[in-house]
Amino acid sequence: MITPDAQAAIDAATDIVGYIPYVRRIMPRDGLVLHETDNRVEMERAAHALQMASDGHRVVVVSSGDPGVFAMASAVYEAVEAGPRTWRNLDIRVLPGITAMLAAAAAAGAPLGHDFCTINLSDNLKPWALIEKRLRLAAEADFAMAFYNPRSKSRPEGFERTLDILTECCEPERVMIFARAVSTPDQALNITTLAKATPDMADMRTVVLVGSSLTRVIERDGAPIAYTPRSVLE
Amino acid sequence: MITPDAQAAIDAATDIVGYIPYVRRIMPRDGLVLHETDNRVEMERAAHALQMASDGHRVVVVSSGDPGVFAMASAVYEAVEAGPRTWRNLDIRVLPGITAMLAAAAAAGAPLGHDFCTINLSDNLKPWALIEKRLRLAAEADFAMAFYNPRSKSRPEGFERTLDILTECCEPERVMIFARAVSTPDQALNITTLAKATPDMADMRTVVLVGSSLTRVIERDGAPIAYTPRSVLE
Repeated sequence: MITPDAQAAIDAATDIVGYIPYVRRIMPRDGLVLHETDNRVEMERAAHALQMASDGHRVVVVSSGDPGVFAMASAVYEAVEAGPRTWRNLDIRVLPGITAMLAAAAAAGAPLGHDFCTINLSDNLKPWALIEKRLRLAAEADFAMAFYNPRSKSRPEGFERTLDILTECCEPERVMIFARAVSTPDQALNITTLAKATPDMADMRTVVLVGSSLTRVIERDGAPIAYTPRSVLE
Repeated sequence: MITPDAQAAIDAATDIVGYIPYVRRIMPRDGLVLHETDNRVEMERAAHALQMASDGHRVVVVSSGDPGVFAMASAVYEAVEAGPRTWRNLDIRVLPGITAMLAAAAAAGAPLGHDFCTINLSDNLKPWALIEKRLRLAAEADFAMAFYNPRSKSRPEGFERTLDILTECCEPERVMIFARAVSTPDQALNITTLAKATPDMADMRTVVLVGSSLTRVIERDGAPIAYTPRSVLE
């Protein structure tokens, strides 16, 4: 699913910077330096990339999915704003990609075919109260929802609370989709309902999609299909 | 920006079905039949594609951007559900793509780097009151927002009302981005504020992005950069 634009940037790079598992997907070659960094050091990673670019390197910061959606693009621009004035005039381009919710939605059918919202459920960088407020307003707006980072070992209780809030705000038959490791050999897709959803269905490699009140499931011989109709007029 | 998966499907197709301007982007070749259809006939187009697939053709229904976001995937599944039972067991795959808001966001910086919502402003298929409700709730949730189909000649007043609602709910300095025909030779990007936004800045080829209250603009020698920080804690 990598676009030709992104592949061309990788092919022209002198340096690749990113979180370890993403950098390991890049094919090594002469003249290319791979800089693997740990999770949760986004600002240091961004500043390192900008410093190398400032020194004349052709640097590619890799993310999975789309770098602009809960990934490195914001961190790079935060570092630009905080850094030396000369960094502002570097030739920085964000190359869009297939973000996880789009890959998950495509695998399940078309659950994001009508208005929707996208929420990062990690409370590392925002207070839980804001997440809860957004969940309630999103349900009131009858948006379909896509959740990134639904659950980690260090904060297993957040997704349990998310399910509780959805149960308060939505009907039990609401369509829910757990899409794990989409587009990898480990891909696993579970199309279920809010009433049947349990916290352990999600982990950090899972994108969770919640239908709007109109999202439907087509049963058939193989895996069911979930989609949201385009119209709310009927 | 076409993924290798999508290109491979086009290369293997016997029939391409879609709205005229999208089908015209496909290179003709022997053995490939191009079926161009007009706008607003999505259900007939979908049923035609499914009937041909049922007859053994390898059919590709083309959209721009991502077929799952306000495009043909939902229409195809609506037609599957309404059609003969045998259509349910066709091998139908949705191939995700770079939807317009991701291309627009990448061109502008990283305005969708935090929680956001995506709203189709066309009231062809939903009542205007629902659009207005969603706009107000999205502002209350402090989502960044992406608007598809903001304005057409047949309904120029909708986007004017959208700006009025945003003006009621958001501060005048709120970042707004008008991204027209992104990734085409006609690409035009306008990063401005709510106070300076006017209805004529949008047309049907424009994606409009509205920042959250935290979205910032980095001024520099070239075009400014708009981004939303990852954190709301500071």
